[in-house]
Amino acid sequence: MTKPKGFEKPAGVRDYLPFAVEKLRSIEHRVLDCMAGWGYRQIMTPTMEYYDTVGVASSTSDQKLFKLLNNRGTTMVLRSDMTAPIARVVASLLKEEPMPLRLCYHANVFRAMEEEAGREAEFFQTGVELVGDDSAEADAEVVALAVASLQAAGVNSFKIALGHVGFLNGLLEEAVPGREDLRDALKERLLHRDFVGYRETLAGLSLSTKEQEELEGILRLRGGKEICHQALELSHNPLVQASVQHLCLVWDALEDYGVAEHVMIDLTMIGDFSYYTGMTFEGYAAELGFPVCSGGRYDNLLQQFGRPAPATGFSLKTNRILDGVNGLVAERELAILLQYDAANRRLAFSEAERLRKEGHSVLMRRARGPEDLIGSPAPATNNERTGPLGPLYGEIRTFVSF
Amino acid sequence: MTKPKGFEKPAGVRDYLPFAVEKLRSIEHRVLDCMAGWGYRQIMTPTMEYYDTVGVASSTSDQKLFKLLNNRGTTMVLRSDMTAPIARVVASLLKEEPMPLRLCYHANVFRAMEEEAGREAEFFQTGVELVGDDSAEADAEVVALAVASLQAAGVNSFKIALGHVGFLNGLLEEAVPGREDLRDALKERLLHRDFVGYRETLAGLSLSTKEQEELEGILRLRGGKEICHQALELSHNPLVQASVQHLCLVWDALEDYGVAEHVMIDLTMIGDFSYYTGMTFEGYAAELGFPVCSGGRYDNLLQQFGRPAPATGFSLKTNRILDGVNGLVAERELAILLQYDAANRRLAFSEAERLRKEGHSVLMRRARGPEDLIGSPAPATNNERTGPLGPLYGEIRTFVSF
Repeated sequence: MTKPKGFEKPAGVRDYLPFAVEKLRSIEHRVLDCMAGWGYRQIMTPTMEYYDTVGVASSTSDQKLFKLLNNRGTTMVLRSDMTAPIARVVASLLKEEPMPLRLCYHANVFRAMEEEAGREAEFFQTGVELVGDDSAEADAEVVALAVASLQAAGVNSFKIALGHVGFLNGLLEEAVPGREDLRDALKERLLHRDFVGYRETLAGLSLSTKEQEELEGILRLRGGKEICHQALELSHNPLVQASVQHLCLVWDALEDYGVAEHVMIDLTMIGDFSYYTGMTFEGYAAELGFPVCSGGRYDNLLQQFGRPAPATGFSLKTNRILDGVNGLVAERELAILLQYDAANRRLAFSEAERLRKEGHSVLMRRARGPEDLIGSPAPATNNERTGPLGPLYGEIRTFVSF
Repeated sequence: MTKPKGFEKPAGVRDYLPFAVEKLRSIEHRVLDCMAGWGYRQIMTPTMEYYDTVGVASSTSDQKLFKLLNNRGTTMVLRSDMTAPIARVVASLLKEEPMPLRLCYHANVFRAMEEEAGREAEFFQTGVELVGDDSAEADAEVVALAVASLQAAGVNSFKIALGHVGFLNGLLEEAVPGREDLRDALKERLLHRDFVGYRETLAGLSLSTKEQEELEGILRLRGGKEICHQALELSHNPLVQASVQHLCLVWDALEDYGVAEHVMIDLTMIGDFSYYTGMTFEGYAAELGFPVCSGGRYDNLLQQFGRPAPATGFSLKTNRILDGVNGLVAERELAILLQYDAANRRLAFSEAERLRKEGHSVLMRRARGPEDLIGSPAPATNNERTGPLGPLYGEIRTFVSF
């Protein structure tokens, strides 16, 4: 442990300089506007929550929660997602509001330990929760809204992979009953897309040929609606059947939304949140090697806060979109520099006020004498990055009498 | 220490429901737009900073800092203001950028212990820093921008009180040399506007009649530019003279900005931040009993981060404006509810897409049969608050064949 120097910021967190802020803000505004168009109302919750309620209910593993003590000795956490805090609000401040509730957010969330893996300890998520509707239409609505939100954020080419927690749970319960450890090992392989490891683990299980074939077969279950029909043939386990039939209904609704071209069924996909109970999905951008959004159904979370209700939602991984997507920020008009001397100050200030009312950005500068005047700026556009701030002004107007 | 229940949020922090978010966002956008018009570029910094650098440099007393340990055992703080983090960025990522630098922000900041006084432990500030310009014009620019920002935020009637740290320091050094304890006691009284206590403390000091009159006299030093002239007569201490002359120059520039009507000189005002070195100011709204903005010059902070430079700035106390100011949020257009049956779903979805492209907010609802249709909504406007969310829709369109 070395003492940090004055200029250091902590590892795993970042400063956003003006160009990055403009882009992040542009994504934020476009996505929130899109969500508002689907009737989702924005809420904000505190950065700190009680560990015993929201901390425990969140899907983040305990050692990844940032913990601190408040002055009463109670353990607090920095929120690790917005789903658990919103569940708390739905069960408290909004407990009299009729379902379904449509809520959206843009918020920073925190994960400890991430910086050691080179990942961010603080990052932004922009997402929605649809609470109180257990229908396939509700699941389809959040998937279709995820498509619209990615488009609003400027992600042009992407694919949403759609799975179901119940499908895999049903198959595994049947194949390795009573062995949760083995089921977890297999799911862990799938979660990390480690298909070789998945096959190896399967091979060590001494299953029947039929079960082995079923469980290997799911690796091929990726594609369009035909995958649903193949999956229905794979096993007659009731949980498998119900899960796949639900996905068929979601797919039909997505076709009616006209977004099925952006979606594929992927029954190896189980979602990385422990609270998912039904459909799960992840969005992959062509230009990026990692998911840019994730979502799913979580029908058991609300009851932990005293208001049992089904729920579904998603969040964009806003920082990944910020870092990976080009071309969203509009060309910024460069500021006008007004330089003046003492005798013309009032005139210059009133000219600045007039220009600002017209929507221009205006910088003021007092020149102390003829030798202190700035000449014309080199022709510059916003795209020329002469430094972290780019050019500060693109035009000079001078009000001096000397 | 009792275990929190599921629905509880921590004391001193708050949830913002949709009406409050709309208003807060409206203030945020209008004020940041205003600051952009004055050439200030927005930056964002991490929620967590090192205690040893930013934490120590901030003006917040140690017991009011939220502290936590990262996984390397280093003490971190939740930022208590944005001035120290921005000083860090100016001295590091922006160290090659020429002065002056104009930066702005909208950010949540944290203060421990506040909830016991019924104050918020997490709240928003919206502000600017002008770094690298020690002139009276720079001080006047941030005061004039504070006036414009308060107007942009919807605060209609307010007054900015303008003081100078050096004026009081000069007077007190002369009157009670070597007695920092007494000087601090007197300043503490002024900071809390406890003028009776100030007079009592003075009376116990056995000062000369002249010094006693000088120090009592400052309580009358509140008003327009004439106050500067009176203050110049009060003492010939060089620090007093230089401080008041600087305020005269600031006042002249504020007259040229056309905002002097919003400003008064108040030489009892010392500012509540320990790092202020020159002019300080606070804004008071007519409708509110507490400051809505505060600012001042801090010429010694940047050198703590290795890039010595003069600086001046302010921040709006955004939550106070949110809670105290009415009438900023535009009437929100209520959503359209589209209800449909299975046979007309595709038609309803495409109608929703069309309406959203026109800028409407559209909610979808599947009706399971004729008895499940919702009739016309009662005529409602956004101003009728039927609950924390208000009415969810103002119009129903129905696409069914049964």
